[in-house]
Amino acid sequence: MTTYTAINLIARPTPGPIGSELFEVVTKELTKAGPSQILIKQTHMSLDPAMLGWMSPATDSYIPPVELGSVMRSSGIGEVVESNHPKFSVGDRVMGMMGWQEYALSDGQGINKVEAPLPSETVLSIFALPGLTATQGLFNVGKPKSGETLIVTGAAGSVGSLVGQLAKAEGLTVIGVVGSDEKCDWIVNELGFDGAINYKSDDLAGQLDALTPDGIDLFFENTGGPIQNLIFDRMNNHARIVVCGMISDYTKAEPNPGPNWIPLIKKRITVQGFAMPDHFHQVPELLAKLTPYVMQGKIKHRSHILNGLESAIDGLNLFFTGENKGKLIVEL
Amino acid sequence: MTTYTAINLIARPTPGPIGSELFEVVTKELTKAGPSQILIKQTHMSLDPAMLGWMSPATDSYIPPVELGSVMRSSGIGEVVESNHPKFSVGDRVMGMMGWQEYALSDGQGINKVEAPLPSETVLSIFALPGLTATQGLFNVGKPKSGETLIVTGAAGSVGSLVGQLAKAEGLTVIGVVGSDEKCDWIVNELGFDGAINYKSDDLAGQLDALTPDGIDLFFENTGGPIQNLIFDRMNNHARIVVCGMISDYTKAEPNPGPNWIPLIKKRITVQGFAMPDHFHQVPELLAKLTPYVMQGKIKHRSHILNGLESAIDGLNLFFTGENKGKLIVEL
Repeated sequence: MTTYTAINLIARPTPGPIGSELFEVVTKELTKAGPSQILIKQTHMSLDPAMLGWMSPATDSYIPPVELGSVMRSSGIGEVVESNHPKFSVGDRVMGMMGWQEYALSDGQGINKVEAPLPSETVLSIFALPGLTATQGLFNVGKPKSGETLIVTGAAGSVGSLVGQLAKAEGLTVIGVVGSDEKCDWIVNELGFDGAINYKSDDLAGQLDALTPDGIDLFFENTGGPIQNLIFDRMNNHARIVVCGMISDYTKAEPNPGPNWIPLIKKRITVQGFAMPDHFHQVPELLAKLTPYVMQGKIKHRSHILNGLESAIDGLNLFFTGENKGKLIVEL
Repeated sequence: MTTYTAINLIARPTPGPIGSELFEVVTKELTKAGPSQILIKQTHMSLDPAMLGWMSPATDSYIPPVELGSVMRSSGIGEVVESNHPKFSVGDRVMGMMGWQEYALSDGQGINKVEAPLPSETVLSIFALPGLTATQGLFNVGKPKSGETLIVTGAAGSVGSLVGQLAKAEGLTVIGVVGSDEKCDWIVNELGFDGAINYKSDDLAGQLDALTPDGIDLFFENTGGPIQNLIFDRMNNHARIVVCGMISDYTKAEPNPGPNWIPLIKKRITVQGFAMPDHFHQVPELLAKLTPYVMQGKIKHRSHILNGLESAIDGLNLFFTGENKGKLIVEL
């Protein structure tokens, strides 16, 4: 009898870092694929900020939360090792919501073959949740125009780094906000951003003034935090603010207040939140929009690889500390 | 030689009530209409919250501010008393931006004849800035759907009372927030709102819960103030917030902070500010949208009439105190 390891969510997060007491590591018996089922051996698991929402109580979340006692939800890539399903063969590389476990049984719903000759890290970094989120948020919510100035927070993160590169490819001036000088260097010198601000440095207002002399037309918000108000103060008439994430506030008991709404009127600004589960039916068109940029070599990425299933638990905290360097992926 | 009275703006507003020291009352010599000009004797002057923006420094405003030393800007209705203009005859009733003065000389630009057989108070209350603002904000920004719940602040005001009645006519459940029990009574028993809250009363959260058991889909914000956060907490998924005015914050040195943006993501909410000067080119279509509701008797209004040009100065403060009962109009 073969066993495998899985991690269940057993408690809801409270303010502060994510602790191991929210999870239980369990050993399960590996069962064979039943009729029309496949058995997948997961190789790469994606960690995403959205997972914090999935762990939270239902009233606050846009998709049903993970039930307590169930395997923690996540997307990943794996290899089909048994198949009783007509669409899948042993050896297929597949992607889908596989959860925090080494093996996943599936009826094939929501599981897709990965045909592109790209490393699994690249597939998870660009074509999974981050790429879909960046494409939907930037193009369909933000409506960028060539010549405009965009600022993106969490700019070295999995979504932010794609947003900035896509906007550059569209002819915008792109400024990124990050949490270290090393990330500043990476987004400017590797990704081609026009400027970068380390939000932990001094004189943020002065840096913003210097980097956005014509104001800001499009603000892609991934983080929240005190720089939000400084950016808000520099928005131009008819600006758009795309609210994608507020990672710095998710674990606070008392989230920071937001800016007063008077400038929304005076400058006719639109602030719009969005979440990918509303747009899963648009995935084919989002991939069709994103793929040419990737094929033209305009999108670089880097993955931050953690090793072993249990590294996922501490890994989630890297979103809060900003210590992740690129897309967080757990290699199994 | 005949003279007339005008009021010039001579200083920008500072926090606190609008004082008479911002204005100078001047006596001017009445000149004859020149070639292609008309002379209008103004009979009714409209006071609107937007005027506070026009008085403020340029950097903060969406149309050029009134220049210091110039006649204060306002819309009004008057009678043509001299005409050298082919389109206007003596005796015509006309509407346009006439300013705080008893007589206005004009080349006809932006001056329109009022042909409808309605009292001037009605024309200024429904078809001028308030009606255009309510129509644009509710329909084009808010996108109301029958069966939804709308809440409007400043609900007894010139814009809010129209927004609520239009939304009722469209099949929404409509709750109004006002500043007195008398206004509660008026919007429910005269205008047909489904419920009303006096924001000066106790247990606002409990009142909101009782009146919006299915949450709030559309929030038309005219006032700001502490109830904003309570309303924001009750917004539904995919809600829209139309930010039209923040009258309670305009004269504060430190405006209240707004709500944190996390719910914008979790509930995929859109918050959009707008201002009518962006939409003046849409006036014909806005009037075409609004007129049938008026003709079908679905729109009631009340005017709060002040008497004499100089009453305009103190009149502006009624917006802050909420003591105005309906559309503020100065009868000359």
